[in-house]
Amino acid sequence: MAAGREVFIEYGFQKATISEIIKKAHTGYGTAYVHFKNKDDILIELMEDVMNRFYEIAELPFEPKSRQEAYRLIEKQVGLFLEMANKERPMMRVIEEAIRLSDDVRKNWQAIRERFIQRIAQDVAYSQKSGLARTDVDNYLIARGWFYANEMYLWEIVRNEHRFSIKDIVHNLTAMYTGGLYI
Amino acid sequence: MAAGREVFIEYGFQKATISEIIKKAHTGYGTAYVHFKNKDDILIELMEDVMNRFYEIAELPFEPKSRQEAYRLIEKQVGLFLEMANKERPMMRVIEEAIRLSDDVRKNWQAIRERFIQRIAQDVAYSQKSGLARTDVDNYLIARGWFYANEMYLWEIVRNEHRFSIKDIVHNLTAMYTGGLYI
Repeated sequence: MAAGREVFIEYGFQKATISEIIKKAHTGYGTAYVHFKNKDDILIELMEDVMNRFYEIAELPFEPKSRQEAYRLIEKQVGLFLEMANKERPMMRVIEEAIRLSDDVRKNWQAIRERFIQRIAQDVAYSQKSGLARTDVDNYLIARGWFYANEMYLWEIVRNEHRFSIKDIVHNLTAMYTGGLYI
Repeated sequence: MAAGREVFIEYGFQKATISEIIKKAHTGYGTAYVHFKNKDDILIELMEDVMNRFYEIAELPFEPKSRQEAYRLIEKQVGLFLEMANKERPMMRVIEEAIRLSDDVRKNWQAIRERFIQRIAQDVAYSQKSGLARTDVDNYLIARGWFYANEMYLWEIVRNEHRFSIKDIVHNLTAMYTGGLYI
């Protein structure tokens, strides 16, 4: 896995080869192919690794008692999420490329995305049940739209194309979301 | 262009060849290569065509006099935008594939996206100046987040992966956005 990470970061997804990874890992072809059928497989496992760090953020306790507390918790979560994207840029760039080029990686990414959306939908439902959030919207659809805005800013940061500070992105995303959802 | 459209829709971006397009257009190689250096070029021109129909929606007059009118105008715009995605599905599927696989097409898509975001940012600024929208957020960052949520739902619809009706998507997107932005 460490060898895979190094090779992917050095060459990018398209140019990385399983031979190079095997060479760097000082292992044999047989051993490698017992575990992975191709480089897509290795990338998917590395992606799970990175995404677990993001899940930890998404799964932080969320039981706000007020609109203000909801704002603070969400702002913190979004901040950690986008800072993590920034920290993990080298590997996230490879992941972005792999999502574009590999059908398997893309399917895997979609499953990861659904896991995030499910978790957000739970948080929205919690706030709706506790009377903090409006109930004329669908928690699942709101969670999707919200995750999408976050995800697209994540890719901007990964590509280093963001023209605003992460702090400003976090403030604006959070202000709109809590303003739109919380009563 | 008509031949290009047909061939791309039939074969997809990756499998389409410029020879097939030339054959279908009953023209010569020389003539074709005067206008286009490769199939990416043809796709980019076809993409501009389709996107002009989306621009028309984005550029509908937007001068709301109240929060309620803003809601109605935005709901109408989002509805038209996502219905257009649905109507243009065959070509939009090709465009999605091309954005993934061609650097030139992807760059072009990013320019198209910026044009949408600029237009939305103008609309947000208008509402802020007229006292309808909160001024503690940045019109440009808001426009980006908002476009991203719309764009991602657009791709869901294009891939026919949306599990909710377009009407429900429109309602939830619009409710969150106007709730978050308008005073």
